[in-house]
Amino acid sequence: MTQIENANKGNITPEMVEVASRETVTAEKLMEDISNGRTVVVKSDLHECRPVGIGRGLGIKVNANIGTSVFHCELEPELEKLAASIRYGADTVMDLSTGGDIDTVRRTIIESSSVPIGTVPIYQVITEKKEIKGVTASDFLESIRKHIASGVDFITIHAGLLKEGIPLLKDRIMGVVSRGGSFLVKWMLHHDKENPLYTEFDAILDMAREHDVVLSLGDGLRPGCLADATDSAQLHELKVLGELAQRSLAAGVQVMIEGPGHVPLDQIKENIDLQKKYCNGAPFYVLGPLVTDISPGYDHIAGAIGGAVAAAYGADFLCYLTPKEHLGLPDLEHVIDGVIASRIAAHAADIARGIKGARDRDDAMSRARSNLDWKGMKELALNPEKVETFMETDLKDSSEVCTMCGDYCSAKVNKEERAKYSG
Amino acid sequence: MTQIENANKGNITPEMVEVASRETVTAEKLMEDISNGRTVVVKSDLHECRPVGIGRGLGIKVNANIGTSVFHCELEPELEKLAASIRYGADTVMDLSTGGDIDTVRRTIIESSSVPIGTVPIYQVITEKKEIKGVTASDFLESIRKHIASGVDFITIHAGLLKEGIPLLKDRIMGVVSRGGSFLVKWMLHHDKENPLYTEFDAILDMAREHDVVLSLGDGLRPGCLADATDSAQLHELKVLGELAQRSLAAGVQVMIEGPGHVPLDQIKENIDLQKKYCNGAPFYVLGPLVTDISPGYDHIAGAIGGAVAAAYGADFLCYLTPKEHLGLPDLEHVIDGVIASRIAAHAADIARGIKGARDRDDAMSRARSNLDWKGMKELALNPEKVETFMETDLKDSSEVCTMCGDYCSAKVNKEERAKYSG
Repeated sequence: MTQIENANKGNITPEMVEVASRETVTAEKLMEDISNGRTVVVKSDLHECRPVGIGRGLGIKVNANIGTSVFHCELEPELEKLAASIRYGADTVMDLSTGGDIDTVRRTIIESSSVPIGTVPIYQVITEKKEIKGVTASDFLESIRKHIASGVDFITIHAGLLKEGIPLLKDRIMGVVSRGGSFLVKWMLHHDKENPLYTEFDAILDMAREHDVVLSLGDGLRPGCLADATDSAQLHELKVLGELAQRSLAAGVQVMIEGPGHVPLDQIKENIDLQKKYCNGAPFYVLGPLVTDISPGYDHIAGAIGGAVAAAYGADFLCYLTPKEHLGLPDLEHVIDGVIASRIAAHAADIARGIKGARDRDDAMSRARSNLDWKGMKELALNPEKVETFMETDLKDSSEVCTMCGDYCSAKVNKEERAKYSG
Repeated sequence: MTQIENANKGNITPEMVEVASRETVTAEKLMEDISNGRTVVVKSDLHECRPVGIGRGLGIKVNANIGTSVFHCELEPELEKLAASIRYGADTVMDLSTGGDIDTVRRTIIESSSVPIGTVPIYQVITEKKEIKGVTASDFLESIRKHIASGVDFITIHAGLLKEGIPLLKDRIMGVVSRGGSFLVKWMLHHDKENPLYTEFDAILDMAREHDVVLSLGDGLRPGCLADATDSAQLHELKVLGELAQRSLAAGVQVMIEGPGHVPLDQIKENIDLQKKYCNGAPFYVLGPLVTDISPGYDHIAGAIGGAVAAAYGADFLCYLTPKEHLGLPDLEHVIDGVIASRIAAHAADIARGIKGARDRDDAMSRARSNLDWKGMKELALNPEKVETFMETDLKDSSEVCTMCGDYCSAKVNKEERAKYSG
C-alpha cells in the first residue's frame, strides 16, 4: 500500500513516524495531510534511503540537480556532486543525466544516495531516439517503467502540456524552455497527437503506485523569462496539472506540482496562490524562481531571492540553481554554491513561516559571535569549510578579532561594556 | 544653496536635471520630493562626480563599502576595489578606512571616484584616539569637519543613539554591532554624558549645509542578529532619527536614514513601514538586511534576499554585503560578488516596483537567449567577464549549444518548432 492508501485507512506508517520525528508536526497530522494531498513522503519502496516529507507545515526542502551530459559523461564527477549535495544540505537529488551509460549512472546514483532520487524519464527518450518520427507513446511509458524499476523515488512527468496549450505560446519571447516540454511540443506537432503522458496517465499512475513513487507533475510550459511569466500558456497547463493531481490522489498516488522558473518578484505571491487554488493545496516544487533574467553566472543568487519569497508565501520545495545555469553543466564548486544558496532561502522561509525551532541555530550562531567564539561560528555555519578558509587568512594568530575591524571590533567592545548596562 | 534650499524656492538645479535624465521622474517631481524630504541628491559641491538620486520613485541604488583596516592598510588594493565597484554597478562607494594614512586614502578615493563617496567620520576618531577618556565632543566634530572639507558626498552620523536607549539593550543576544554605535555607548558610559552627535547636531547641520553633504543618520543600535530584530532599542533610536530628519529638512540639509542589519524575512515589511512612518518618508538605506545569521561566507546571498524584499517594500538604497562579512576584510573578488548580488536585488525590486523600462534589459537578454545569441547574452549580463569565463569552458567550438543540454537544448528545439505554431 502507498502512503496515501495507508493514510486513507488511518494507518501511520514507519515512514510517517520517521518524517514526523524530524519535523514539528505529529505523525497523525502528517497522515491527515498525506491523505488530503497536502503533503508527500518521498521514498520508493525499492530504495533504501531516508524518507523526506514535503508539504504543509513541514520545513522547506531543497533539491539539487546533477547528472551527465553529452560533453561530460563520466560517472565519478556526478557521484562527487551527489555526496557534496547531501553534505551541504540537499534533501533530495535529481539525476538528469543525458550522456554516457544513463542506466548505469542512474542505478549507481540511487545505490549511492542516502536521500531520495528523482529523475525525468523523458530525458532518456530524448537522448536515445534521434528521430522524432520513430518515437512512440510506448517509448515514453517504457522509460518511466524502467526508471521506476531501478528505484527512483520521484519522477517528473510533463502530463499537463496539451495540444490546445501550444497556440498560447505564440506571443512569448522564450517559447518553451523545459527540455521535456520542448520535446513534447515537437512530438505533438510532428505526430499531430495528444501528449501521451496525458492520454496514458492512468497507466503511469499504475506504475507509480506499485512502488509508491511520487509523481512530480512537470510544467513543460513554464515561463523562461520575466516577460513570459504568469501567462495564459502557463496557467492553462497549471489547471490541467490540478486535475491530474486530483486523479493521482484518487488513485492513491502521491503527487506534487512543479512551478516556474522566471517570475518577477511582485508576481511570486500570485503564482503560489494560483497553484494552491488550482491544485487543491498539493505541494509546490519551484525552480528558483529567478527574479531577473540578467544574472547569468549568479543565477543561484537570483534564484535564492525568488525561492525565499516563494517559500515564505507557501511553496514547499525549492529546486536549486547553480552559477552555471543558462551557461553550462555545473562543476562541483557550483553545485555546492547552488545548494547553499537554496538552503539559505529555505531556512529564511522556515523562520518566516514560524516553523518551531527554525531560528535556534541562528541564535546559537549569534551567541557564538557575541562571545567571539570562532570555532563555534564555524561549526554553526552552513559551510564550515568555507568559513575555515576565510578564517585562515583573516583571523590573526592569537587574536580574537578579524581583519575587517581589528581591535575596533564591536563585539569586542560590546563584551567589555556589556556588564555596565546589563547589570 | 543646498538642493533643498533650491527646491524650496522652486529652483531646478543642474543636478536635478542630470538625475532626472537617468530616472523615470521629471525634474519637477524630483524637486518636489527633495523639498519634502522624500528624495536626496547625493553630491558635495567640493566633489566632481555624478550626482545620484536616492528616494521616491527612483531606481534602487547600491552602495559598496571599501577601505583599509589595520591589517590591510595599503591604498592600491582599495583603489582597485573602487574601480571594480563602479564598473559592476555600485551607485556610491563608502570609504570605511581604519588603517594606514586615513586622510590620504580618503582624499585619493574621492579624487579617483566618478560616483559619490561616503564616510563614517567617527571611525577616524576611534582609530586615532586610543583612550576613551581623552576623546572629547570636539573630536567628533573635528573629524566631521575634516571629512566634509576633503570632499565626501555623504557621511554617517550616529546621532540618534541616546543614553536612554542603552538600557534597552540588556536582553539582546548581540548587543551593539555597529562599530560607531559601540564606541559611542562606551564613550557615554565612561563620561556619563549624552551622545555629542546628538547634543551638537545643529553644529553638524551647519557643516553639512555648507557643502550640501547628505547626512546618513546611522543606526548605532541596529540589530546584529535575527533575535534582536525590531526590538525596543532599535525602535527607540529610529524615532529619534525621525526627529533629527525633520530638523535636518528644516535646516536645508539633505538626509537619509540607515536601517538594519539582520531581520527575519517576515519582519522586513514592518521595518520599512515603521521607518517611513517615523521618518516621514525619508530615503531608507539598509544594510542587507540579512535574513539568517548562519550564512557566513555567503552573506551576500542572505543580504540579497533581504535587500530585494526590503526594496520591493520601499527601501531606497541597499548597502552591499560581501562573502567576507563577519569574517574579514573583503578582497577584490568579494567586492565584485557583493556588488553583483546587491545589483540583482535592486534590479529585481525595480521591476517589482514597476519602474518604467526596468525590465527592458531582461527582455533583451531573453531575446538573445531565444536566438542562441551568446555574444548578446554576454553583453547583457551583469558580469560579462564571468559569463565569458564560463563560455570558454562550456560553449563548444562551432556549436550554438552549451554543455548542459547539448543538442537537447530547448532553445534550439524551440527555434526549429516555433514557426509551426506561431504562424
